[in-house]
Amino acid sequence: MKVPRRKLYDLVHRRPFSSTPRRREIKHLLELPDRIHPSYHGWSASFQEDMVSLLTLAETKGNDLLSLRWPSPPKKILLVKKENTPETTEAVLEFAKYAQHSRPPTHLSDADSMSRHVHSTYPSISFILEPAPAYDLHNLLPFPLYTIPREITPSSNGVPLSPFLPQKVDVTATFGGDGTILHASSLFATTPSVPPILSFSMGTLGFLNEWKFPEHKRAFRELYMSGAPSSRHSILSPEQAASSPPVSQNAAHTIISKEGWPPTLGASLGSTRAARVLLRNRLRVAITSPDKKIITPPALHALNEVILHRGASPHLTHLTISISGRILTSTSADGLIISTPTGSTAYSLSAGGSIVHPLVKGLVITPICARSLSFRPLVLPAEAVVEVTVSGRGKEGVGVSIDGKDQDMRVGSGMGLRVWGEGVGRKAELGEEGEGWMGGVPCVMRGSGREGASGDEGWVGGLNGLLKFNYPFGEEG
Amino acid sequence: MKVPRRKLYDLVHRRPFSSTPRRREIKHLLELPDRIHPSYHGWSASFQEDMVSLLTLAETKGNDLLSLRWPSPPKKILLVKKENTPETTEAVLEFAKYAQHSRPPTHLSDADSMSRHVHSTYPSISFILEPAPAYDLHNLLPFPLYTIPREITPSSNGVPLSPFLPQKVDVTATFGGDGTILHASSLFATTPSVPPILSFSMGTLGFLNEWKFPEHKRAFRELYMSGAPSSRHSILSPEQAASSPPVSQNAAHTIISKEGWPPTLGASLGSTRAARVLLRNRLRVAITSPDKKIITPPALHALNEVILHRGASPHLTHLTISISGRILTSTSADGLIISTPTGSTAYSLSAGGSIVHPLVKGLVITPICARSLSFRPLVLPAEAVVEVTVSGRGKEGVGVSIDGKDQDMRVGSGMGLRVWGEGVGRKAELGEEGEGWMGGVPCVMRGSGREGASGDEGWVGGLNGLLKFNYPFGEEG
Amino acid sequence: MKVPRRKLYDLVHRRPFSSTPRRREIKHLLELPDRIHPSYHGWSASFQEDMVSLLTLAETKGNDLLSLRWPSPPKKILLVKKENTPETTEAVLEFAKYAQHSRPPTHLSDADSMSRHVHSTYPSISFILEPAPAYDLHNLLPFPLYTIPREITPSSNGVPLSPFLPQKVDVTATFGGDGTILHASSLFATTPSVPPILSFSMGTLGFLNEWKFPEHKRAFRELYMSGAPSSRHSILSPEQAASSPPVSQNAAHTIISKEGWPPTLGASLGSTRAARVLLRNRLRVAITSPDKKIITPPALHALNEVILHRGASPHLTHLTISISGRILTSTSADGLIISTPTGSTAYSLSAGGSIVHPLVKGLVITPICARSLSFRPLVLPAEAVVEVTVSGRGKEGVGVSIDGKDQDMRVGSGMGLRVWGEGVGRKAELGEEGEGWMGGVPCVMRGSGREGASGDEGWVGGLNGLLKFNYPFGEEG
Amino acid sequence: MKVPRRKLYDLVHRRPFSSTPRRREIKHLLELPDRIHPSYHGWSASFQEDMVSLLTLAETKGNDLLSLRWPSPPKKILLVKKENTPETTEAVLEFAKYAQHSRPPTHLSDADSMSRHVHSTYPSISFILEPAPAYDLHNLLPFPLYTIPREITPSSNGVPLSPFLPQKVDVTATFGGDGTILHASSLFATTPSVPPILSFSMGTLGFLNEWKFPEHKRAFRELYMSGAPSSRHSILSPEQAASSPPVSQNAAHTIISKEGWPPTLGASLGSTRAARVLLRNRLRVAITSPDKKIITPPALHALNEVILHRGASPHLTHLTISISGRILTSTSADGLIISTPTGSTAYSLSAGGSIVHPLVKGLVITPICARSLSFRPLVLPAEAVVEVTVSGRGKEGVGVSIDGKDQDMRVGSGMGLRVWGEGVGRKAELGEEGEGWMGGVPCVMRGSGREGASGDEGWVGGLNGLLKFNYPFGEEG
Repeated sequence: MKVPRRKLYDLVHRRPFSSTPRRREIKHLLELPDRIHPSYHGWSASFQEDMVSLLTLAETKGNDLLSLRWPSPPKKILLVKKENTPETTEAVLEFAKYAQHSRPPTHLSDADSMSRHVHSTYPSISFILEPAPAYDLHNLLPFPLYTIPREITPSSNGVPLSPFLPQKVDVTATFGGDGTILHASSLFATTPSVPPILSFSMGTLGFLNEWKFPEHKRAFRELYMSGAPSSRHSILSPEQAASSPPVSQNAAHTIISKEGWPPTLGASLGSTRAARVLLRNRLRVAITSPDKKIITPPALHALNEVILHRGASPHLTHLTISISGRILTSTSADGLIISTPTGSTAYSLSAGGSIVHPLVKGLVITPICARSLSFRPLVLPAEAVVEVTVSGRGKEGVGVSIDGKDQDMRVGSGMGLRVWGEGVGRKAELGEEGEGWMGGVPCVMRGSGREGASGDEGWVGGLNGLLKFNYPFGEEG
Repeated sequence: MKVPRRKLYDLVHRRPFSSTPRRREIKHLLELPDRIHPSYHGWSASFQEDMVSLLTLAETKGNDLLSLRWPSPPKKILLVKKENTPETTEAVLEFAKYAQHSRPPTHLSDADSMSRHVHSTYPSISFILEPAPAYDLHNLLPFPLYTIPREITPSSNGVPLSPFLPQKVDVTATFGGDGTILHASSLFATTPSVPPILSFSMGTLGFLNEWKFPEHKRAFRELYMSGAPSSRHSILSPEQAASSPPVSQNAAHTIISKEGWPPTLGASLGSTRAARVLLRNRLRVAITSPDKKIITPPALHALNEVILHRGASPHLTHLTISISGRILTSTSADGLIISTPTGSTAYSLSAGGSIVHPLVKGLVITPICARSLSFRPLVLPAEAVVEVTVSGRGKEGVGVSIDGKDQDMRVGSGMGLRVWGEGVGRKAELGEEGEGWMGGVPCVMRGSGREGASGDEGWVGGLNGLLKFNYPFGEEG
Repeated sequence: MKVPRRKLYDLVHRRPFSSTPRRREIKHLLELPDRIHPSYHGWSASFQEDMVSLLTLAETKGNDLLSLRWPSPPKKILLVKKENTPETTEAVLEFAKYAQHSRPPTHLSDADSMSRHVHSTYPSISFILEPAPAYDLHNLLPFPLYTIPREITPSSNGVPLSPFLPQKVDVTATFGGDGTILHASSLFATTPSVPPILSFSMGTLGFLNEWKFPEHKRAFRELYMSGAPSSRHSILSPEQAASSPPVSQNAAHTIISKEGWPPTLGASLGSTRAARVLLRNRLRVAITSPDKKIITPPALHALNEVILHRGASPHLTHLTISISGRILTSTSADGLIISTPTGSTAYSLSAGGSIVHPLVKGLVITPICARSLSFRPLVLPAEAVVEVTVSGRGKEGVGVSIDGKDQDMRVGSGMGLRVWGEGVGRKAELGEEGEGWMGGVPCVMRGSGREGASGDEGWVGGLNGLLKFNYPFGEEG
Repeated sequence: MKVPRRKLYDLVHRRPFSSTPRRREIKHLLELPDRIHPSYHGWSASFQEDMVSLLTLAETKGNDLLSLRWPSPPKKILLVKKENTPETTEAVLEFAKYAQHSRPPTHLSDADSMSRHVHSTYPSISFILEPAPAYDLHNLLPFPLYTIPREITPSSNGVPLSPFLPQKVDVTATFGGDGTILHASSLFATTPSVPPILSFSMGTLGFLNEWKFPEHKRAFRELYMSGAPSSRHSILSPEQAASSPPVSQNAAHTIISKEGWPPTLGASLGSTRAARVLLRNRLRVAITSPDKKIITPPALHALNEVILHRGASPHLTHLTISISGRILTSTSADGLIISTPTGSTAYSLSAGGSIVHPLVKGLVITPICARSLSFRPLVLPAEAVVEVTVSGRGKEGVGVSIDGKDQDMRVGSGMGLRVWGEGVGRKAELGEEGEGWMGGVPCVMRGSGREGASGDEGWVGGLNGLLKFNYPFGEEG
């Protein structure tokens, strides 16, 4: 979807709501500066050593959670909320106000004029929303929201945002459940470089959901400050700011670092504080023609799974599965699921698949009602290239669903799906320059620093709390 | 195969080098020089590119099979055979003779004196066997065998060899099935650095078994030459040597490289020829005391799996499973299997586990008859530290079995098992100096070089041939 | 579909093809006399005793296969064939000619005039077909076929035949596979009293399919003679008739018994010869309104299974399952299968259900991709009344499929399915008068009499041949 | 164990404890009169009709729960308790006192002398215990207990009681959990006619356990009165007796019916009151020699399951399974479970078997860790004769376990197990004279009469409460 930038700009400026400067505005997201890319790093050796001594082991130097490092503070936050739920709307408003005002009022005595001044003069935060919620919420917030104007938005499902989001969004914050995270992830389905996702659950925790909403202040502060130079490891919460002794204007000015972080007035978070990030592997998915050409131009990424299914058709799906060019098996089934470890606790589980920890670099193949007694689910290396070829379905074909959304295109006889794990790992291993890690969907996990830098907390909790994993039989009296 | 011993003896005595009766020697393996360590490397970029273009992908730069590189030719081969099977005895004899004589007779016109000269002057090959087969076979071979003399061998199960083998063995060759490979691997259970294993199957191919015995000449040649400088990419097979025009002594002398490889008289194997190696992850296993101290001094390695089981006890096993210090679940069951991906097609499969490709870095947890409807098998990252604590069994405890062998020690109440994946990967990632990869059991895979540098061939074959994976239902008439 | 009988008759008589006697005719099936009902009986005590002594047991007096007993020879055979397969067409023709001509030509030397004479004078056989095949085949057979004329046949799927078939058909013969038997069974889906089904497989044997087509002569002869008075236990095959010494016309006449069986000229089949019948339990299925009233007037019967499924809907199916008025569980799933034991080797098996022997009086509940780790398949008594109530789907509802055919009606929120096993058993137990057994779909099984009066032969064969049940892992070399 | 009856009697009479009449005595159970056999019947037609109209069905006349009918009141109660649990001891004492005293004190004004008089003059209740608990408890109860004297009791496991119990016990009451019921059932393992079992749970309800202990008064009253002539449908509870107006001695005398039931002073339980009984099918189990002869003289019965297992042997069990003389399959496995429907929720479930309702007449075959991807559990008709033959184990053989108890005999190569369902059903069907039902273990179910004459209540409760059947996944926030 290529809309000339000029035309977009015109559309935006013709809109009445942007003519009154004092109004709560909706602005075009292309007005925002370009994205700030964080980097991701393993934990320091000293931290590793601590953990090692804890476990009396010398083998744990693996790819566990990573630490996030911003080159300068993040400024553009995409807010994604579950539809039609008042409590997520309220949560979005509360979060946005906090995130905006938590920038410290260091140099103004007049609290009232402060925030305006901050917006115009100092590094500040901008919020991007999908069109529908942007129009719903912009009157409820005392600062502009960014989106794409309705006129150029053919539908409300957010897809038109997609081409621009990877250029602008520093951080995505989601408000809802696992479905909302999947939706947020789908907005970046065509880009290899996804901004970090900070997700808040309103109620019961989902599998992907790492923060309860009441923790949003701590969560945001940690993410915002993550990787700030170590002499400025702290940030004033609004409450702290109110109770702090006043600071002179000049002093404050000098404290603002050149990277843009606010001054540090404490170091309560400790020296290893950093947002902990799990790079969730995605699958790259392409539909292929009978001559094995990819016919879906940009590879789509799935965070959970891609499914081939017969849908309402009474006929079975006949599929041939190859791994890296070698035929593995042919099957007649209702469908086939290729899932990430993250997706292994979703639909694949219902179809009988194993539970795979999200840090395993693999992909899971689970048939749906295969006509066989012996199609045990498979876990393949993430590097495997899985090709699934459809036969015997004519042009009607079989349906394709990515992360729960049915795709328009159907896969007819001879056509197929090519699926392979996204490259996630150290840049050096993946042939890229620079240090640190890349790839996947960076999910900011709950907890921080030394307090268990492991990705298992949420996962173990999800297994037991959500899946009722291994509920034992009752005792006999 | 029963060859009258007398006849065998006669055959031996007609050979000139066997004229001294005292010669059928068994020597102590400590007389051998120290081990030669090969290195393991990813395939060259150009090879990668070929594969990438083949797949129209740019994501395949993963950890697939590796290429093996010797600094100088391997000289000490451990021969491990299945017990009590005449055909493996024959295979061992045939292989040993071939491996010994395939060193080219390049510089001697007198074939008769040649081999002696080679043995004394030039790099040659020595064979190590476990004590029992060494004593059985040493009269049948025209060169000494190495083992540990009976006097210092308390039992015949080969364990006494273990402390010395990792210092001496360059290559292990196995003759039998998967069980024989497991046994060979167990001889190196306490060392992190296992020599490459070249395994030959006598009959049906097992899952771990990559070469049929009739391929042994090609297999050995490739392994022997693997990583030789590229101008000497070939080696004369005995047949080729016989039909080659004679080479002058001097010429031959100059051809012997300083690394010790024989001269190249052809390059039929091509420039990318190298033994393809799969580093099979092992599990490190330790038994822990109630205060979480490791009480089995050297960590044992399991190639397939470690099992906690109730054995003949009528009482269930009560186990609490933790991952990296966090309690995952408690279970009552007949037992619990923690397996490698390699072991996922062995006992774990019978207990309901998923099939995990050997290149996935993970470990598989599968309960045996858990008292729960909801203990779905789990796949964890290889880096995870799994701790299993036993409760309610008093001193009787539960049994521990590693790679099919019951351990002497039982695990009583409060005690437990600590299991974590061996570090396998690039040395740099694992904090070691040098290039290349390390860790695991290096298994030499069938096929070579460009002809599909993928570990999937044997695995896919095993799935279909051995496991009868996904046998479809019959058609209706 | 209620067509006034008068009108049907008119339609038939207006058709030109019935005015010329010599033409290959299509007649209206209502012209046929009413159905002959066989009875079904346990095997005699002496037979039981033999089996008991064979097994050294005293517990085998159960409900195994039954013997079929005709009061007089069956005369109206419904022929059901797989569509669009020339080999089944040929098989139908061959079978029809054999069945027709196998009535013994006892009193006529002139073969040409024989068959006509037989048709007019002697007990003879009439063939009923569904409209489409009737029109396809009637020119290829030298005797009339019965069906419903095209004018009153809105579609070719045979459903319009249904109201009349239970009144006319003595025996159904199917030519095809399991799907063809299911189709034949569906023609009697609304009647409690199904004529016996004799099924022929063209190729590989299906699960329901008990006879290979080359056995059709023996199969038909046995079924035809089943229960004939014991002095007339045999029937001439056409081949035997040709080679028999001529019999005088008078003698033959007197031999024709008053029940109508042809004379016996041998007793090769032995005294226990009788068709062995398996009464396959069906499910009765009704759709219920939110106030639990049945809203599908005649209860439909399913031979394999009834399925509730979400079809192409992206939303899960939320179902509450009750057993005999007591809530068992609620589930979110892609669907739910309630199957007979016969159907346990069909779709239910693909969804993870157990294999249930067709002689077990039970019904099987198997979820399709339930959102639970702990919905283990259930086997309930056939007498259980299973009610499944749909919730949360609005009017869209979920789809219902019976024996593989989607039903027109969808099941909306609050509506449900009521399913219970058809009464199959001794008449006395079911509150009916008379001796013998009743209920189910009487399937004529392969083999006869003492040669193993067990229903296991075909079932065991199907398990091993079709399902590849328990294919063992390959041996290690 | 055949002890001459005379000697037993001597032993008993030599014991000092029986010489002092006022002592709490232990008597020999052979002193008791012979057993009273109840009969079991379907519910009346009118009851059926009610249920039918409830369900708007006409198909429910199946074998649901039965009603129990005593010819005269039961008098000998076997009390079986869980070992080493004080609360079951207390429950036994409380129950015994209640059962004893609830016989109404109708004719004596002196309460103190009453019970003694009742014991000597009127029909009263005697309690039988296994030797160990009999000696533990006899001093705590004011009336004698019956057992076998210690001198002739080689061990404390109750087995020596077995030959006599079926001759004496009218009712078994168990106090504990499912394990206690299994033990009680095992005391009758060699008899086809098991007295009804009334089981009380101390804590959480087990699967087999139908009454909570606090319900013991109602439970016992119902069982005691079950089948009493309808004008005497009620019995005084001790509480009622205490608060009732005094009744004259004469009046009471006339009320005692000739069958022996106490007078009715109310009819609160209604006309359909009767104990509801589930006849739980058992398996008959025999070990066979290589020539297929049964070598375990009396067929043992299993209430839950029989298991063939390798125990502590490292070698797999190789088994060939036949059904009614036809080979079904051969398997290599850790073991094999053949279970009843009752046992389908026990060990078979842990091994992956389906859940089978106890009213299904079937048996379940579930392998333990079979070396196959395709050994799906099987449900066979109860009438099937399953033969399992062991191969390749030499004399060592495999172990056999019945209802959780390892048998002394091992099954060597060529030997096998023959298993078939016990005949349970209407006497007429099973070739016995008389009305009503027979066979199985008659378990008195909780609830009575019209309040749901269905066996599903406890089963559904067990599924949900004990097995955590179908615990749904958590909701996303």
